[in-house]
Amino acid sequence: MPRLVIEPLDREAFAPFGDVLEPGNAETVYEINAGTAQRFHALARVDIAGDDGAAVISLFRAQPRALPFVVSQLERHPLGSQAFMPLGTAPYLVVVAESPQSPPRAFFARAGQGVNFRRGTWHHPLLALERESDFLVVDRSGTAPNCDEIDLPEPWTIEPLSPR
Amino acid sequence: MPRLVIEPLDREAFAPFGDVLEPGNAETVYEINAGTAQRFHALARVDIAGDDGAAVISLFRAQPRALPFVVSQLERHPLGSQAFMPLGTAPYLVVVAESPQSPPRAFFARAGQGVNFRRGTWHHPLLALERESDFLVVDRSGTAPNCDEIDLPEPWTIEPLSPR
Repeated sequence: MPRLVIEPLDREAFAPFGDVLEPGNAETVYEINAGTAQRFHALARVDIAGDDGAAVISLFRAQPRALPFVVSQLERHPLGSQAFMPLGTAPYLVVVAESPQSPPRAFFARAGQGVNFRRGTWHHPLLALERESDFLVVDRSGTAPNCDEIDLPEPWTIEPLSPR
Repeated sequence: MPRLVIEPLDREAFAPFGDVLEPGNAETVYEINAGTAQRFHALARVDIAGDDGAAVISLFRAQPRALPFVVSQLERHPLGSQAFMPLGTAPYLVVVAESPQSPPRAFFARAGQGVNFRRGTWHHPLLALERESDFLVVDRSGTAPNCDEIDLPEPWTIEPLSPR
């Protein structure tokens, strides 16, 4: 079974799939609140399509996944972007693909790095590592179907990470 | 100068002003990702008015404020809700008012508790405590003016907190 190479998560590498939510990626930084705070502005735009939907803020609590892990399915949300921001200190893995036919790519997200999947991006459900991990999630709530799932032509494996 | 009483932040007390973002406040909880995660669904709705605006995801980095602190101004965003989720482990204070004439209320937010100010809610800029604190923020970006500021009829003071 082919192995997924784990890439570091950064803006350039992740650009085909969405945004990386961390201060250094802001194109605009404002001083606010009389200079006592900085606003790293608009790291991502919330993109909600369709008249039946609204952007909502939810929390996900994910159990850690064990490696090796086999990636055999992906999903996408055709009607909305989906952002994940980790609230704890554990890293996690982000697996995405440009199409179901193209090889998936796997990114190692450090604590403090969030992602926003562009609307329609094929991705694997988040893979928490090390321990139970909470994420703030900004995505779409609505009545129209908004999740496509696909079996990959061949499964890929994620092998245990080297010690960091 | 009158003192603000510091109240614990919970859903019922904060209901006139918005939502408290923590798992226990979800009306709907889904098992997702083959049972490996829980979705605490729609703790808040993102409410963006006006054709020129979009919901965006930003990060705020706030310096800690020293107590006693004098609250003499409030602000509101008439065109959009504004959500704050702390990413670190420090608590913070949330000061809100039902109107500029009514006494403000101050809430002590623990790490792990976010807030979503309902559109138009009068509030003080967030008051980080203890140390530099990052927040994920979901609010409105647009060209129309979206911040009203007002001087309170009388200032209020927040005294140093009792040891916890």
